[in-house]
Amino acid sequence: MLTGAQYRDSLVDGRQVFFAGQRVPDVTTEPAFAAAIDWTARGYDNNFRPEPDAVGPYFSVPRSRDELRTMEHALRQWDMASIATSQGLLMAVTAASRMRADHPVYAERAMAFFEGCQRRDIRCAMTITDAKGNRRLSPSRQKDADHYVRIVETLSTGVVIRGAKLHITSAVNGHELIVMPTKRMKEGESAWAFAGAVPVNAAGVKLVTTSVAPVHADPAAYPYSYRYAVPEAMVIFDDVFVPNERVFLCGEVEYSDTWAHSLGMWERLGNLSHLIDVADAIVGLAHLIAEANGLARVPHIRQKIGDMTVYATLLAAALEGAISNAEVSPEGFVTPSELYTNAAKFYAAEHFHEIVRDLHDIAGGAVLTAPALSDLASSETGQYVEKYMRTMNGVSAEYRMRLFHAIRDYTADAYAGWLSFTTLLGGGGPHAQRAVATKHYDVERAKQLAREIAGLTP
Amino acid sequence: MLTGAQYRDSLVDGRQVFFAGQRVPDVTTEPAFAAAIDWTARGYDNNFRPEPDAVGPYFSVPRSRDELRTMEHALRQWDMASIATSQGLLMAVTAASRMRADHPVYAERAMAFFEGCQRRDIRCAMTITDAKGNRRLSPSRQKDADHYVRIVETLSTGVVIRGAKLHITSAVNGHELIVMPTKRMKEGESAWAFAGAVPVNAAGVKLVTTSVAPVHADPAAYPYSYRYAVPEAMVIFDDVFVPNERVFLCGEVEYSDTWAHSLGMWERLGNLSHLIDVADAIVGLAHLIAEANGLARVPHIRQKIGDMTVYATLLAAALEGAISNAEVSPEGFVTPSELYTNAAKFYAAEHFHEIVRDLHDIAGGAVLTAPALSDLASSETGQYVEKYMRTMNGVSAEYRMRLFHAIRDYTADAYAGWLSFTTLLGGGGPHAQRAVATKHYDVERAKQLAREIAGLTP
Amino acid sequence: MLTGAQYRDSLVDGRQVFFAGQRVPDVTTEPAFAAAIDWTARGYDNNFRPEPDAVGPYFSVPRSRDELRTMEHALRQWDMASIATSQGLLMAVTAASRMRADHPVYAERAMAFFEGCQRRDIRCAMTITDAKGNRRLSPSRQKDADHYVRIVETLSTGVVIRGAKLHITSAVNGHELIVMPTKRMKEGESAWAFAGAVPVNAAGVKLVTTSVAPVHADPAAYPYSYRYAVPEAMVIFDDVFVPNERVFLCGEVEYSDTWAHSLGMWERLGNLSHLIDVADAIVGLAHLIAEANGLARVPHIRQKIGDMTVYATLLAAALEGAISNAEVSPEGFVTPSELYTNAAKFYAAEHFHEIVRDLHDIAGGAVLTAPALSDLASSETGQYVEKYMRTMNGVSAEYRMRLFHAIRDYTADAYAGWLSFTTLLGGGGPHAQRAVATKHYDVERAKQLAREIAGLTP
Amino acid sequence: MLTGAQYRDSLVDGRQVFFAGQRVPDVTTEPAFAAAIDWTARGYDNNFRPEPDAVGPYFSVPRSRDELRTMEHALRQWDMASIATSQGLLMAVTAASRMRADHPVYAERAMAFFEGCQRRDIRCAMTITDAKGNRRLSPSRQKDADHYVRIVETLSTGVVIRGAKLHITSAVNGHELIVMPTKRMKEGESAWAFAGAVPVNAAGVKLVTTSVAPVHADPAAYPYSYRYAVPEAMVIFDDVFVPNERVFLCGEVEYSDTWAHSLGMWERLGNLSHLIDVADAIVGLAHLIAEANGLARVPHIRQKIGDMTVYATLLAAALEGAISNAEVSPEGFVTPSELYTNAAKFYAAEHFHEIVRDLHDIAGGAVLTAPALSDLASSETGQYVEKYMRTMNGVSAEYRMRLFHAIRDYTADAYAGWLSFTTLLGGGGPHAQRAVATKHYDVERAKQLAREIAGLTP
Repeated sequence: MLTGAQYRDSLVDGRQVFFAGQRVPDVTTEPAFAAAIDWTARGYDNNFRPEPDAVGPYFSVPRSRDELRTMEHALRQWDMASIATSQGLLMAVTAASRMRADHPVYAERAMAFFEGCQRRDIRCAMTITDAKGNRRLSPSRQKDADHYVRIVETLSTGVVIRGAKLHITSAVNGHELIVMPTKRMKEGESAWAFAGAVPVNAAGVKLVTTSVAPVHADPAAYPYSYRYAVPEAMVIFDDVFVPNERVFLCGEVEYSDTWAHSLGMWERLGNLSHLIDVADAIVGLAHLIAEANGLARVPHIRQKIGDMTVYATLLAAALEGAISNAEVSPEGFVTPSELYTNAAKFYAAEHFHEIVRDLHDIAGGAVLTAPALSDLASSETGQYVEKYMRTMNGVSAEYRMRLFHAIRDYTADAYAGWLSFTTLLGGGGPHAQRAVATKHYDVERAKQLAREIAGLTP
Repeated sequence: MLTGAQYRDSLVDGRQVFFAGQRVPDVTTEPAFAAAIDWTARGYDNNFRPEPDAVGPYFSVPRSRDELRTMEHALRQWDMASIATSQGLLMAVTAASRMRADHPVYAERAMAFFEGCQRRDIRCAMTITDAKGNRRLSPSRQKDADHYVRIVETLSTGVVIRGAKLHITSAVNGHELIVMPTKRMKEGESAWAFAGAVPVNAAGVKLVTTSVAPVHADPAAYPYSYRYAVPEAMVIFDDVFVPNERVFLCGEVEYSDTWAHSLGMWERLGNLSHLIDVADAIVGLAHLIAEANGLARVPHIRQKIGDMTVYATLLAAALEGAISNAEVSPEGFVTPSELYTNAAKFYAAEHFHEIVRDLHDIAGGAVLTAPALSDLASSETGQYVEKYMRTMNGVSAEYRMRLFHAIRDYTADAYAGWLSFTTLLGGGGPHAQRAVATKHYDVERAKQLAREIAGLTP
Repeated sequence: MLTGAQYRDSLVDGRQVFFAGQRVPDVTTEPAFAAAIDWTARGYDNNFRPEPDAVGPYFSVPRSRDELRTMEHALRQWDMASIATSQGLLMAVTAASRMRADHPVYAERAMAFFEGCQRRDIRCAMTITDAKGNRRLSPSRQKDADHYVRIVETLSTGVVIRGAKLHITSAVNGHELIVMPTKRMKEGESAWAFAGAVPVNAAGVKLVTTSVAPVHADPAAYPYSYRYAVPEAMVIFDDVFVPNERVFLCGEVEYSDTWAHSLGMWERLGNLSHLIDVADAIVGLAHLIAEANGLARVPHIRQKIGDMTVYATLLAAALEGAISNAEVSPEGFVTPSELYTNAAKFYAAEHFHEIVRDLHDIAGGAVLTAPALSDLASSETGQYVEKYMRTMNGVSAEYRMRLFHAIRDYTADAYAGWLSFTTLLGGGGPHAQRAVATKHYDVERAKQLAREIAGLTP
Repeated sequence: MLTGAQYRDSLVDGRQVFFAGQRVPDVTTEPAFAAAIDWTARGYDNNFRPEPDAVGPYFSVPRSRDELRTMEHALRQWDMASIATSQGLLMAVTAASRMRADHPVYAERAMAFFEGCQRRDIRCAMTITDAKGNRRLSPSRQKDADHYVRIVETLSTGVVIRGAKLHITSAVNGHELIVMPTKRMKEGESAWAFAGAVPVNAAGVKLVTTSVAPVHADPAAYPYSYRYAVPEAMVIFDDVFVPNERVFLCGEVEYSDTWAHSLGMWERLGNLSHLIDVADAIVGLAHLIAEANGLARVPHIRQKIGDMTVYATLLAAALEGAISNAEVSPEGFVTPSELYTNAAKFYAAEHFHEIVRDLHDIAGGAVLTAPALSDLASSETGQYVEKYMRTMNGVSAEYRMRLFHAIRDYTADAYAGWLSFTTLLGGGGPHAQRAVATKHYDVERAKQLAREIAGLTP
């Protein structure tokens, strides 16, 4: 296994990364990436064990509902790059299981690749969303054929791919890109039916990045994002060669969505698991700030906290439903219920903004207007800030201001935009998740209950 | 065990029942009660076993999470009087467990009473909501002290109670009334801290009843309520003597809400379990009528069905959460998680009207205006009704009309009012359930997550 | 003008009406129609003036915004048949205005017809929704060509039509049916592009009716629907001859939706106007029952009443918006803003169920379980009902029970189903109304504001 | 009148302003304030007229409903400081009208002060929200008596005040602070019943400021907030002397909330007026980005845009309702309907987050991950960004990226937090606005409608 320091060194590998119009010569020294790389490095150090055959907990596949439950709770402590790596492995296991009968070679390659990742203790980024061009048109009908990543040349030793992938988290601070089609391809679109693995520093790979990290700001004003903001990349494949052993799909349109579906399932489950903590944290912030403001017993505030509590509890219930109704593959691997996972993700996305709104209502405008901690430290203004920001015994100005800053950083500033989008669109948007839930629902049982009501049963 | 016929006979016991301003001399021949009594009698017959020591499945207490899960699915097939009896037993077990240390006599009496019920194979009604008078005032401050049921006389052999209880389902068609305070009594209100068991035909008990059964209507137009409408009773205790062995609480205000809380927990869980079937049935009706109308593929209708599906799935998830997080009492009895049960009940009540609205939107106005089946049978109008109510091969006028009538009966007529109120207010209103959920939520964990975000942890 | 008695007589005209599988020989003596006919007759008497040239207020067309506002408030006092007649006239004026240039003959015929209605002081029913068959298919692709009303024969003196219309309010108790296509017809569907006027008693017209009137019930238990329930009819046109002077559209598909659109606009406006009263009434019921229960100052109940108040106020605001933004036709007639009318109707339908739910939550279960007034009058139960249904000085049992019964009748029983469907689907469903609102919204202004934000303006 | 340049000069007046822990020596050169001061200066220049008696349009009081309507549309073009000044004037007119009978001197002083403001062409900030301390306690019960601004000394020539006011917009870039109690004071709290005017540069006034302006960022990435972000101030009154002619309330607790109520009414109306533009702009962004993505005809996206359209339209309707139902004071001044204004503000705040969520769903993740314009300009990455961010003819990469950046800046970044809080809490939170709406609703009319339904009218 690698240590955090070894991990940092591994990122200086010639990768072509761009930020704010400039090439980033060394990602480990770019302030905009510092939070993500520090977090990942802490993850390496936290899980490091010196035994030669030691592997991180993210390289494991649950074989019972209890193991699945344990993993879904454990992952909330992992860094994001490790979570993505875990989801990539679970996706590969699931997809391989689904493809094994027809395409054993792809299944073996994918599993071999992940064994290599485990051995090398590296991190993978899931690379799925294409540029898409005009969304009304399918890949083959786009004016620019590269608007979906495609195979532009097939060689005996591998293939050459071209295109771009958007919204790629943990690419800048990871090692491997797992590339897959963003959706099912139709007949005649075999060039776009590609899945495979590409090193971040492969020739022709370029990362154009964005970040919500508060680079130039006072860290004290950004207690959360200063530690946890992660960069997003637009990953460009400018005629990148992928050797055969790293190709997991090559033209078989009937399996073109197998990878995306497998990833979707695990990503939404992980997302749900994480969202439970997010929701609980927001409930916690509401309690703390209501108490600090002296408002904890006001009826309408208690009701709002009650509403938030119900939201958080239903998410936790849905995770339990997804686990209790999990299925077991022929190989003995456990996969969560798609019905519960998708229904929960839809519900979470539909109503997330309401708990944020209620938190803001409870906290009040000082979320935005509370002075900086530097104003509290200032000899000129400190005494006033101290005097007017404290509220009662046990609630100092600093304590309350830190709460306000945290609420702003987490729910009403740049990071909040990222959190809100991830909640809404992570693993696909709510419209798709509702449709998947509908598809996996037991419609026949429902119709039978309906027929009984109508007296339409024999 | 009793047969259905024996059950019917047992109801002719001198009980004083009133309906629509008249005394009902024999409840088994009153049309307004027919559905409820027939349903209960079917339940007796379905579960009848001739062995001398046989007992119905509603007289069992779960001792593991799996047994609890099994019971919560099984009860959906029981008649309502049996469900109430089961909940009464579970309430008694739970309350007895909570009271045993301080009041072993009450605990023993309650358990002995339920063993007697089991032996006699009779049905119990939970009798909880008081008349309440002016809701702003507590029992002892009401102008009329009887607005909450109270002990008016204490004798060596028992007590005499007076008052009235509202919304009592399964009293007319049951045998025993389990009486308990509707809420916690304060110091000085020991007269109102009474719990006990009273036979429906005890001297001084009078039942003033209402019913949503479609007494005078064409049964074909009410396919559901004609079979399942149950009467509600206002139960009057006009100085009723309760012997000591049937008294389970007698003045101990500190335990005055133990019974209500124990009942609330089991009633809400059973309610939730039932609501899952209701929600699934409504989803099923939506599918059937959308298909019958040729609208199953219209985007906004698919989305509405998806929304309904998410609702139904979250209820099922919450039941799973309540079971997976169930607790075990010292005696080895399993009790569901109050957090999940109450959060689910709140969510169900808040959003039930939306799935009904969406079903109506999908079904269209013919829910109300579809002709009667007698119009279809008529020689004068049958040909027209047949011609204009059918829509395509496989969808006859009769099939579609039966669906419309069922949707009206179940969701847009008198029974629908009953279903809607039960969903909203059964086991207490949503305001109370949100508060209970909030109380049982792990606030400390939430606060800890919040402190971590704010950098307020050591 | 006619008196109420003359109106009653006019309905005994040989019309073929069927109810519950039977021919109704005389509609004025059928109990299921009594409320509607009594209400209409009261309307005749209330507005009767003996002068020879007197006309009812429903036969007027607003020529200024103030006149439109006055009319929209006045119509809330009219009976439903008069409202339909008014809307028919306004529809005719609007449609005639839109058709006049291309089809002056139709415009003249429609106006002449309405002048005749005014002279005869009769009532018209809007006859629009077809049987529709398989909704996925257009009229000409239905298996049964009659699933949309169509012209089956064209003669020199008129046309013969066949088909059925559903959900026709005020047909049984009105005189004339104004028939129009339910939607825009395509090229090749000219046979279905028919509009015209047909007397209810014309040869070949048959009405198969339904009713939510509480025919067999205690009137005291149905204080509202006993007076205001109206029958709905499925109107069958079994090869009905329509003379030329009563034909307003005959094959011109490009105008096939002109009538429906004109009616939709006025029907939704009238609907909105009525819904303001409905919403205000529900707020009023909430206040009265909260006060009667002693709950008027409980925070969550005040909030619910506040939510209901906001709903009612936004409907009133939207009516004001529709009037303030009304347009004036070349002829000087005022037509309401479609944007505001449709947005309001959509909002009203989406949220109506919430105010009903909140009313039920405030009122409590006695809405369903309050004894009958006959139980209060009974010598055996009256004293108990009186004792336990009253709550405080000024709130007698009878007063409170009447409130409960009214809430049940109006919002939780058969009439409530009718009210709920009318709110949801009257003038077309919410999906259509949202689309119409979108179409009439000033998108260009919105885009311009967006471009300014984005710095995309020159 | 002043020019923009003269306005800038006027701000260099010795005012004590602090930002990020530092004293700001000259507010006109602080980058964090640049947007606000530039915007205000543009407002001066736009409205400048050289005539000696010229006055800005914000110094006018509507005397008819049409004038009120005109003003509410005009103000959307004004800068924020001018809007605040206008609202201050309208507040003074309204409060003076309400106080005139009992306290003519205060009324005269307030009007004289505003005439002076008009003559000097200066800008005022409304200074209302106190530090509040423990919210559960009233001002006189706070541990620190200064947690609400109070009079600490009364002299013959004026009073000395102490305390702090939070969330003060347009103080840094304005000239005068209009100070008033944040709520009604009780008997014995006359020291806190103070209203008056204080120059920003008065001795003892200190402004501790915050800003969401993207100070260090690429302006192109913040197309909106770079121009329109305004600083907020915590205003400290460290024993500030206020001469008598600037004191508008001095201990009269019975009028202590007159100023806040008057301001609330005008602030909410102006807020509503502004929110209509905000809502329309968000609808416009949704249309533009849906078209740019090729998604404008996808059903669920059209529905979301329809939902947003209904929201925007109801706000516009409510403004119309507030104006159409405006009242006229004895002096001939027009004041908007509080019922409609507050109902609209409540509705706007409750649902604003939904239209933002829907915009994000329509726009997709590129709102966050779209590369910077500098990446498009870069010789290394420009060709790729151009290739993959464009979608179809007419939608260049730059155009689409500017839309994404605008959506992020306006709805998902630091400015978005400010906009969201302003919408939610501007003019007080939704809980208060619902209560005010309830208070101004015609409850008697509603009860009368309810009584008619219940048959409870004579």
